[in-house]
Amino acid sequence: MRATVFHGPFDVRVEQVPDTTLREPTDALVRITHACICGSDLWPYRGLEPFPPGGRLGHEWMGIVEEVGSQVSTIKRGDRVIAPFAFADGTCEFCCKGLYTNCLHGGFWGGTNDGGQAEAIRSPFADATLVVIPPSVEGDEARLKAMLPLTDVMGTGHYAALLAGVHTGGTVAIIGDGAVGLCGVLAARRLGAERIILLGHQERRLSLGRRFGATDLVTSRGEQAEQEVIELTAGGAESVMECVGSQASMDTAIAIARPGGSIGYVGVPHGIERINLERLFFDHITFRGGSAPVRAFLPELLADVVAGRLDPSPVLDLTVDLDGIPSGYAAMDQRKALKVMVRP
Amino acid sequence: MRATVFHGPFDVRVEQVPDTTLREPTDALVRITHACICGSDLWPYRGLEPFPPGGRLGHEWMGIVEEVGSQVSTIKRGDRVIAPFAFADGTCEFCCKGLYTNCLHGGFWGGTNDGGQAEAIRSPFADATLVVIPPSVEGDEARLKAMLPLTDVMGTGHYAALLAGVHTGGTVAIIGDGAVGLCGVLAARRLGAERIILLGHQERRLSLGRRFGATDLVTSRGEQAEQEVIELTAGGAESVMECVGSQASMDTAIAIARPGGSIGYVGVPHGIERINLERLFFDHITFRGGSAPVRAFLPELLADVVAGRLDPSPVLDLTVDLDGIPSGYAAMDQRKALKVMVRP
Repeated sequence: MRATVFHGPFDVRVEQVPDTTLREPTDALVRITHACICGSDLWPYRGLEPFPPGGRLGHEWMGIVEEVGSQVSTIKRGDRVIAPFAFADGTCEFCCKGLYTNCLHGGFWGGTNDGGQAEAIRSPFADATLVVIPPSVEGDEARLKAMLPLTDVMGTGHYAALLAGVHTGGTVAIIGDGAVGLCGVLAARRLGAERIILLGHQERRLSLGRRFGATDLVTSRGEQAEQEVIELTAGGAESVMECVGSQASMDTAIAIARPGGSIGYVGVPHGIERINLERLFFDHITFRGGSAPVRAFLPELLADVVAGRLDPSPVLDLTVDLDGIPSGYAAMDQRKALKVMVRP
Repeated sequence: MRATVFHGPFDVRVEQVPDTTLREPTDALVRITHACICGSDLWPYRGLEPFPPGGRLGHEWMGIVEEVGSQVSTIKRGDRVIAPFAFADGTCEFCCKGLYTNCLHGGFWGGTNDGGQAEAIRSPFADATLVVIPPSVEGDEARLKAMLPLTDVMGTGHYAALLAGVHTGGTVAIIGDGAVGLCGVLAARRLGAERIILLGHQERRLSLGRRFGATDLVTSRGEQAEQEVIELTAGGAESVMECVGSQASMDTAIAIARPGGSIGYVGVPHGIERINLERLFFDHITFRGGSAPVRAFLPELLADVVAGRLDPSPVLDLTVDLDGIPSGYAAMDQRKALKVMVRP
């Protein structure tokens, strides 16, 4: 089969690899129908995060089940399924608490595991990991595309909103106009936020943010941006969603939170050396983050997509086939694309 | 009247100062009957925190109301009252959220305000700040002494337990065997924790911790202590209460929290330069702290003391009169006393 393989910075290739097979009785084999390139794939692509040469890529995918192991009971051949970006056993202490990304036996797609930017993939713990897509949407390509971000960025935006305590009538500031930040706007609106302030710098992305429900856009940087949010909110936003993971975005998040408010940070921390602890302490700011346990949110978000109440598909602004994957990475790296959908 | 005045490191004096008087119609004048010296008073005493020379000291006190302003409606002359360590208007946005220590018009006793280590004190916002002690305890000196820690350390320990998500049947690790940590043990037990691990180094304090309800004591330091807690809890404590405020205690708090757990940090941060953000992120650890809004907890904790269900008075292991205050500071500085009660 063909799969995307990392060879080094700026060098990803779609290559012939050995066909994947069932290994455990709890596995499923899935033929990939839809996948994505993720903003987080750019960290190794740009050489900013170590990644094993020869490692597979892609952690956002949907597909059709081709074969299941003998102990798989809820997933069957022919099912169309969606996967979260991490697999999990569904039975350990942390899965039982909804923390699927801390599963004691789980892991992430890609690297030494199969990746989603490929023709097929082996899913461990198929019953716990995969969610069956209702047959009612068969043939509705727009609806399927709307589901695809639930594999990662939409679930991550939703998690940021939950961690930030977004609630009906609330005020939220969202830092970052990438796919996660934009999905965060949708998530905040879905949870009833009345005021949604989006901080970013890319005009096209910000206008998508506006379309998704942002009520205010802040395009300045650093202290200027912080001052603007503090003025807009008369003292800071009660909910802040940090969707970047850089020192600058974290500084801003801590600066613009209202006393007694909450920060949800979901940007994987990269090079963050300082946390303004005095601000967090003296202003009683709750600080919560993590790699989103997307699996926990798939059923409810999927139901909303199926019902037509949620559509994050506009974040997918470029589509490629398997051969087009290297050019898809380049397009995202050069900010010519926000997020790439792969149709093998 | 006489009051405690800061002159410089290791130099506090009890001096004649102008009698305090009502200034605002919402004020009350209170004759102090009980006060404390606080571990946090040692920061300026040791020259480790700036403090205005000539500033007053003492933020933990109870007393008898001598006079009230024309707009005070719930507090009257002759009432025995207890105060939290910060005064607050009770009506601003943050007071309404229970965050009395972030009151827009409030402040702290001492410094340029009256202090509690004195014969008398002026209380701003008397209706909102002061809580009347039921007359049923008149003459019961042991019960009054048991209330005194509610002004700060008991309320702060309780807040740490709330922030750390302590719950019935839960497991909690408490870092620090000072008065706050020890009161934290009482608070954790009161909230139903089943396993209470206390980390500290002072034998007498730890045995008091055991008496208060600690089920396990960890007396080693650094990585050794962390390893012991991780072993005791098979992977970390779901609730961690950080009751010191140093780099070492914060490092330990972050190291021993269970994935998905919560850290409540109430030690005022002193010299904390590093926060292990990767640990907080990848293990989904909720991180919450602050200067405890003790006023919010006074009614329920007071009711428990009155009913005989709560008695933190053993943390007060030395009693002095006004003249004895300087020696009380010295005793706490030299760890000859855990916490000093002042009986003017």
